[in-house]
Amino acid sequence: MPSLVHHPLDPSSRLVRLMCAEYGVPLDLEEIKPWLREPDFLEVNPAATLPILFTELEQPGVGVLSAVHMVEDLYTPEAVSGLVPPDAGARAEMWRLVEWIIVKLNDEVTRYLIDEKIAKRDQRGATPDPAVLRAAKSNLVEHMLYFNWLLATRAWLAGDTMTLADFALAAHLSSLDYMGDVDWSKAVETRDWYSRMKSRPAFRTLLNDRVVAMPPSPGYADLDF
Amino acid sequence: MPSLVHHPLDPSSRLVRLMCAEYGVPLDLEEIKPWLREPDFLEVNPAATLPILFTELEQPGVGVLSAVHMVEDLYTPEAVSGLVPPDAGARAEMWRLVEWIIVKLNDEVTRYLIDEKIAKRDQRGATPDPAVLRAAKSNLVEHMLYFNWLLATRAWLAGDTMTLADFALAAHLSSLDYMGDVDWSKAVETRDWYSRMKSRPAFRTLLNDRVVAMPPSPGYADLDF
Repeated sequence: MPSLVHHPLDPSSRLVRLMCAEYGVPLDLEEIKPWLREPDFLEVNPAATLPILFTELEQPGVGVLSAVHMVEDLYTPEAVSGLVPPDAGARAEMWRLVEWIIVKLNDEVTRYLIDEKIAKRDQRGATPDPAVLRAAKSNLVEHMLYFNWLLATRAWLAGDTMTLADFALAAHLSSLDYMGDVDWSKAVETRDWYSRMKSRPAFRTLLNDRVVAMPPSPGYADLDF
Repeated sequence: MPSLVHHPLDPSSRLVRLMCAEYGVPLDLEEIKPWLREPDFLEVNPAATLPILFTELEQPGVGVLSAVHMVEDLYTPEAVSGLVPPDAGARAEMWRLVEWIIVKLNDEVTRYLIDEKIAKRDQRGATPDPAVLRAAKSNLVEHMLYFNWLLATRAWLAGDTMTLADFALAAHLSSLDYMGDVDWSKAVETRDWYSRMKSRPAFRTLLNDRVVAMPPSPGYADLDF
């Protein structure tokens, strides 16, 4: 069975878990805290990023791009349609949005909130910096406006079909939602879309995730939130 | 002919130009300054990133992931070996390093130096912040140590064959080298590798690039630097 070195709130780990669940591939999960920078972990990934995917290949998939491509290479089912559209134009729009999410949204929102709210709990005496939290949340409001605008005219984030871009955004929003940082009342279109994502069987494992001493926000696991 | 909206020192634009040159695909180039955030540009790419690749497809390739995948989709030659290795393990290692370069190296080094040295020239009265330049250059030293370490045991960045990872690193280092930020005297292995990259016919167009009122560093266009 393939195994994934992950953290439950790391959005890139969540993306790979969602893909594998969607493709019907069971995963052994090994939880680590990348911010502790333990030597064994740094030896496999000096960039200290997650996830790391071990499969039947000798080479692991290290980091989100490598792991996502590995899942596509090894596990895309033949019988059902995969998450990468067959049409080149649709793929281009999908990659544009995947980059938006794994680079821009991460860089402006998700990584700050995880650093401040989760990683800092392992630094004695450290507390979240209110200025950083405020900036990240204000950036999130702008991102949500953009996603609302897209989803007002499209069934799925990158167009007519569900793609990797939907899974990437759902992975990030589910982490942010766990921490209580998403104001769904101001994001009608994105909320409707997220409700569809959340109802997929692939989503179930994520909704049962719990971080020690940090319960999820009230609506986190509700399909009707 | 496909056309590329680019900036001469933007490393992601350079990566796509190198790929197209390697694959023998001529490009029309349209230069813009993404930091001016002009409305026509933001309409095509609200993320304000480069490059944007227009081809025979209706949908443009917007941003580095989308454009790189589009070049692979449309232009990988059948006759010569492409930049994405056929072996899944080799591809995983390639994507790990592509992510290292387009996310981590960019985030810790390249984007700061371009912002401070190039983009600020369009802000009246702004000058580069010495503290930011120092931090970026000190980060670059760490990155170069890692690349030296990899290239001491490998012919190419991701293994035995030249891949997209080599082109991504060469694109970033060529921008940094233009600005005079690479200390080659302390990077023997990377210098040997870069000398091989620079000698490829695909590299020629980059070496003729000039930014107005900012000549390149002395060794920039020399094959023997």
